[in-house]
Amino acid sequence: MGKRPTLDQLDVSLGKRARLHRLLYEHGPGNGTLLFLPIDQGMEHGPIDFFPNPACADPDYQCRLAREGGYSGIVFHVGLAQKYMKAYAGAVPLVLKLNGKTDIPSDEDAFSAQESAVEDAVRLGADGVGYTLYVGSPSQDRDFIQLGEVRADCDHYGMPLIIWSYPRGSAVETKGGRDSIYAVDYAARVADEVGADVVKLNVPRFRDPRNEDSPAAYRKLYQEWKELDENEAYRLAVEKVVASAGKTMVLFSGGSRMGDEDLLLKARICMEAGATGLIFGRNMWQRPFQEGLAITQKVKDILLSS
Amino acid sequence: MGKRPTLDQLDVSLGKRARLHRLLYEHGPGNGTLLFLPIDQGMEHGPIDFFPNPACADPDYQCRLAREGGYSGIVFHVGLAQKYMKAYAGAVPLVLKLNGKTDIPSDEDAFSAQESAVEDAVRLGADGVGYTLYVGSPSQDRDFIQLGEVRADCDHYGMPLIIWSYPRGSAVETKGGRDSIYAVDYAARVADEVGADVVKLNVPRFRDPRNEDSPAAYRKLYQEWKELDENEAYRLAVEKVVASAGKTMVLFSGGSRMGDEDLLLKARICMEAGATGLIFGRNMWQRPFQEGLAITQKVKDILLSS
Amino acid sequence: MGKRPTLDQLDVSLGKRARLHRLLYEHGPGNGTLLFLPIDQGMEHGPIDFFPNPACADPDYQCRLAREGGYSGIVFHVGLAQKYMKAYAGAVPLVLKLNGKTDIPSDEDAFSAQESAVEDAVRLGADGVGYTLYVGSPSQDRDFIQLGEVRADCDHYGMPLIIWSYPRGSAVETKGGRDSIYAVDYAARVADEVGADVVKLNVPRFRDPRNEDSPAAYRKLYQEWKELDENEAYRLAVEKVVASAGKTMVLFSGGSRMGDEDLLLKARICMEAGATGLIFGRNMWQRPFQEGLAITQKVKDILLSS
Amino acid sequence: MGKRPTLDQLDVSLGKRARLHRLLYEHGPGNGTLLFLPIDQGMEHGPIDFFPNPACADPDYQCRLAREGGYSGIVFHVGLAQKYMKAYAGAVPLVLKLNGKTDIPSDEDAFSAQESAVEDAVRLGADGVGYTLYVGSPSQDRDFIQLGEVRADCDHYGMPLIIWSYPRGSAVETKGGRDSIYAVDYAARVADEVGADVVKLNVPRFRDPRNEDSPAAYRKLYQEWKELDENEAYRLAVEKVVASAGKTMVLFSGGSRMGDEDLLLKARICMEAGATGLIFGRNMWQRPFQEGLAITQKVKDILLSS
Amino acid sequence: MGKRPTLDQLDVSLGKRARLHRLLYEHGPGNGTLLFLPIDQGMEHGPIDFFPNPACADPDYQCRLAREGGYSGIVFHVGLAQKYMKAYAGAVPLVLKLNGKTDIPSDEDAFSAQESAVEDAVRLGADGVGYTLYVGSPSQDRDFIQLGEVRADCDHYGMPLIIWSYPRGSAVETKGGRDSIYAVDYAARVADEVGADVVKLNVPRFRDPRNEDSPAAYRKLYQEWKELDENEAYRLAVEKVVASAGKTMVLFSGGSRMGDEDLLLKARICMEAGATGLIFGRNMWQRPFQEGLAITQKVKDILLSS
Repeated sequence: MGKRPTLDQLDVSLGKRARLHRLLYEHGPGNGTLLFLPIDQGMEHGPIDFFPNPACADPDYQCRLAREGGYSGIVFHVGLAQKYMKAYAGAVPLVLKLNGKTDIPSDEDAFSAQESAVEDAVRLGADGVGYTLYVGSPSQDRDFIQLGEVRADCDHYGMPLIIWSYPRGSAVETKGGRDSIYAVDYAARVADEVGADVVKLNVPRFRDPRNEDSPAAYRKLYQEWKELDENEAYRLAVEKVVASAGKTMVLFSGGSRMGDEDLLLKARICMEAGATGLIFGRNMWQRPFQEGLAITQKVKDILLSS
Repeated sequence: MGKRPTLDQLDVSLGKRARLHRLLYEHGPGNGTLLFLPIDQGMEHGPIDFFPNPACADPDYQCRLAREGGYSGIVFHVGLAQKYMKAYAGAVPLVLKLNGKTDIPSDEDAFSAQESAVEDAVRLGADGVGYTLYVGSPSQDRDFIQLGEVRADCDHYGMPLIIWSYPRGSAVETKGGRDSIYAVDYAARVADEVGADVVKLNVPRFRDPRNEDSPAAYRKLYQEWKELDENEAYRLAVEKVVASAGKTMVLFSGGSRMGDEDLLLKARICMEAGATGLIFGRNMWQRPFQEGLAITQKVKDILLSS
Repeated sequence: MGKRPTLDQLDVSLGKRARLHRLLYEHGPGNGTLLFLPIDQGMEHGPIDFFPNPACADPDYQCRLAREGGYSGIVFHVGLAQKYMKAYAGAVPLVLKLNGKTDIPSDEDAFSAQESAVEDAVRLGADGVGYTLYVGSPSQDRDFIQLGEVRADCDHYGMPLIIWSYPRGSAVETKGGRDSIYAVDYAARVADEVGADVVKLNVPRFRDPRNEDSPAAYRKLYQEWKELDENEAYRLAVEKVVASAGKTMVLFSGGSRMGDEDLLLKARICMEAGATGLIFGRNMWQRPFQEGLAITQKVKDILLSS
Repeated sequence: MGKRPTLDQLDVSLGKRARLHRLLYEHGPGNGTLLFLPIDQGMEHGPIDFFPNPACADPDYQCRLAREGGYSGIVFHVGLAQKYMKAYAGAVPLVLKLNGKTDIPSDEDAFSAQESAVEDAVRLGADGVGYTLYVGSPSQDRDFIQLGEVRADCDHYGMPLIIWSYPRGSAVETKGGRDSIYAVDYAARVADEVGADVVKLNVPRFRDPRNEDSPAAYRKLYQEWKELDENEAYRLAVEKVVASAGKTMVLFSGGSRMGDEDLLLKARICMEAGATGLIFGRNMWQRPFQEGLAITQKVKDILLSS
Repeated sequence: MGKRPTLDQLDVSLGKRARLHRLLYEHGPGNGTLLFLPIDQGMEHGPIDFFPNPACADPDYQCRLAREGGYSGIVFHVGLAQKYMKAYAGAVPLVLKLNGKTDIPSDEDAFSAQESAVEDAVRLGADGVGYTLYVGSPSQDRDFIQLGEVRADCDHYGMPLIIWSYPRGSAVETKGGRDSIYAVDYAARVADEVGADVVKLNVPRFRDPRNEDSPAAYRKLYQEWKELDENEAYRLAVEKVVASAGKTMVLFSGGSRMGDEDLLLKARICMEAGATGLIFGRNMWQRPFQEGLAITQKVKDILLSS
């Protein structure tokens, strides 16, 4: 437990291996860890995420941050990739996000619709694709079918598949909610089962009393961990979901903006608990550029010492 | 802010570049701005839009206006393009509108269904395609999938993609409505993300009290701008959404008929605020032909001085 | 107004032109008008339509009537075409009806499902295809998508596309109903926009008080026409919808059985008002054979003098 | 009326003709009539249908009965055909049933989903395919689309298409029910229109008072026939629906088990009234083998004298 | 009754025969019986199933158990197969599970969505595919269509098809429930009809009073068996559903963890009653490794003596 898989331990095809090698060793920290800069929030939440730092509404801002900060890759939908990456081609690896949605309609029956394809990723020289899977949504069936075709194309083209594995939908809300230990742990395993090479997870809210609504085994975990030191519980929670992801490399997301100390603590615990990397967006680009570079460097230091 | 992108600044493929060049420099104002004449209202609203000027029910009327007025292009569904453009082939660029709907059924779950294809546009010698995306509709998932295929075909054939990016559906109505700053701003960004080359937006209703129902950051904008001079607020609203569209060229629509002074003011503010062009329909063809030509000339003067 | 388009005025492809020429000049009246005999009522209403004249339940009855009466063509679903037309091949042009439904389920969400293809029409030597479009139905989106593929196949194979453009569904019933001037006029325009070569319309019920429920501009028309002589209003109503169909040739349907004088009056007004032809079914074959031939001749006389 | 079509009177393609010839003249009675043994009840009703005669749960039972009884063909889903027909290949013609459903879910919105294809029938050397069409179901649109593709494949491969044309769904229940004269008569015509070569119908319940709920013309038929001798009414009812099926050969089903005299009376009336054949399942195999052979022989005698 | 089919008695294609031969004679007991180790519970129930024995959360645990215990094969979704089987290729046959779902959303309208394909199974060198069919679910129609395509691919590639035939959905709950004799018996027959080579069934709960809600014939069975010795009734229940599966080989599942004696009794009765094999998961890997091996050996002894 707590040890991230190395590329050598993974049985990936030659094409996936070449691309993952670029992400793990040729870019970013370069020591087999991953640090991604996602910029699909303009789709998922709208330009409202750019209000704290208006400059970051221009995707070139994130491109520069990714290059100067030395990220393992940047995450774009096809429109932004095509319009903003020319000057960064080859220098900043691209992860093409294939599906998305706005947060305007209700999340009750969440489904993230595909608007670009693995072939687009190949054409654009991407080193990976991102796919959001809403585990437990009433539309989970459509999602599995859509994902299955993406997964098959990834196998065909040797393209690494990064699944944003998110519990979502009305049903999960009655079982502890989308951030419960139960839900995140389940989502981690599902990603491993359906063929993710890398999975993006949220750190479960292990102190949230809604965990009481989860199935008994998880309720028990919650109650045990409640008795522990918070950092110790944090580590256990991360280790649990990392273990459930099996041979799938795990990225943890930063989520909405938090204080620097909390962010670095999160980074440290996640990496120590076996994560392969981090995917921090708002916490990096919702600040002035130099400040963004500085915090990037601090996070990278943690990755480099992992 | 407020500076429109030039073709040189856009990283478009050779085919798109050739076609956009025709639209931006070979037709219309010719200085890199755009003036389109849309005539899909017979589909979207029915012949009722032709009652103020019965002559304009004949699509040849708009063809003549587009040629004599020197528009950058005319917007037709496939049926009208095939039946009315023979005499104008090459002289008036065609933008083929690919999807549409009547306004008879409810807008609660708006979806604009595709009834022609990018291949039709290629076959008809069009220089662009138009696609209506209903951002935030409960049917947004179907819309993204349909759009994704159109976008891929556009990339394949080098065909410029113009997205009519319209907030719509029951959910958006609870967050300030389809014309709120929030909604239009979000729609602008989504178009940029999903791969529009050009986006058609409505000017947000920045003085509409429904903006109070939008998320906090937008409510705040609304309240700040309410304190300003109306034209200054107008400019800020346009600049905001133009910025959110990023490297996607922005067209503003005219909407329903308004007074000439208001129309020209709108044209001027939009262009000064960074729009690449205008797409005015009812305001141009819901009048006698000569009057239509005259107002066209006034609008073009604004574009030419932009 | 009131002048039907000639084949020379239409910009149709060579294949469509050849087939339309057969329908307009080689068969039927032969002077550029059209007289079709539809026999899809067994599908749309069931055998109940054959009770007034049991002999007409045998599709050979209509084949004989079409040949001896000299119709421009006969309209069949694929099953009847394959089973009954062998003896009439080449002598009676076939319009293959591609979609249909029974009237057993509710019309609230009307959709006419496709059960044969343009390729079947080609294979059977047909000179046109028929497609029912339910304008304004909540299922209009599926309908547009289905039609779009039929339209593309028609362009590909040079097959004339005849759209039965019928307002239908719960939404239209609140705006004056399926036979209101508003609804029929809208349906005429939609057919022109989506690529019909010929459109089949019903004469609007211009005296029906339900027109009061239509949008203001149409309510006003209704009120104006109510003051006129009935035949004059009739002519205006027909001219209005013919004009809205633009360069699409218009056929008017006969609908359910009416008196001979009314039928001939209808034929005369429709033709004078610019229709290209008539598609009369029950009024022709719900009578003894000789009587059917006789009324056919009278209708043809009107067409020949048009 | 009352005369069944001969193969020479039907305009079928060479492939269909060859296969129909095997069914009509090479197997079964051999005089142009048809006697089919259906065994898809295990799918449609479950093994419950085999309780009266446990031996018949083994599909080999029906294979033997079909061969020794000299049926025109046996009806199987793909799984049973592949697993049980090896020893009977060529000796017992196969009709491959392409779609099916269990009777566990509600019939309100009946739809029979396709789980094998015409290509399977070709591969297995079948001489026909069976397709259940639920006429009048709210899902009728999906059904027509699915059937349309099957019908096109049948035309392509020269495979006879046998439609089980069954009125079904909530709407038909308000108009006299699935077994009303109205409903069965409509279903007969629809099968003829959509391209059946053979149609399987139920004998309408011409004495059921629910016929009062049907449209006026049928209510009138019901009332007229109520005054007649029952056998005379029976004959008229069968003649009516046979006539509505036109050039489509008609099979009548046996339905659930009935007395031998009733069964033979049914067979005689149906054949005299113009049916081409019978498709009797439970009435044949829900009995001891020799008894099944004996009743088969009696039914065949009727067919042979028809 | 009670005799399992041998490979020689089955009419399978060469490819299926070669692969079934590997499963029946080259691996596992090797005497024509089957013992599978399924590990798709991480998908169907989540990691919660691994809590009793944390080591088993690592799929390598099951791979080792399958190899050292000498199972006929292991069942994996595509992600686990690709990531964990490299060291076991050829040594442990793979059954690729093609569809799945989480148990988070409601089971009312159960549907198991396909996320990998028969082609994946071929590519990975699998000797069979697994497909979950929810018999009786309101979504049964989608399920049949999806299954039909899998079945056709299996026929094309010579890949054995193992159907998890599970009664499920709101309708079945009103007729005795998913584990009633009625429901399981129906599911067994459906699998035979739609083309399973092997079917996985649950032993019906023949003593559950909910059987009273089933159709009369099954209610009667339940009442008769209630009078018998429990083991005798057990045997009859298994024989009944094995018979209904016909020439489809039957596997019984273990379900949730039970006592060893019960498990071995179950194994013995099932095999004596005609099952071809067993598919035991949680009962094998929810224990320490050596204990898992030991119980495996005991189960194999039963199979070897069958």
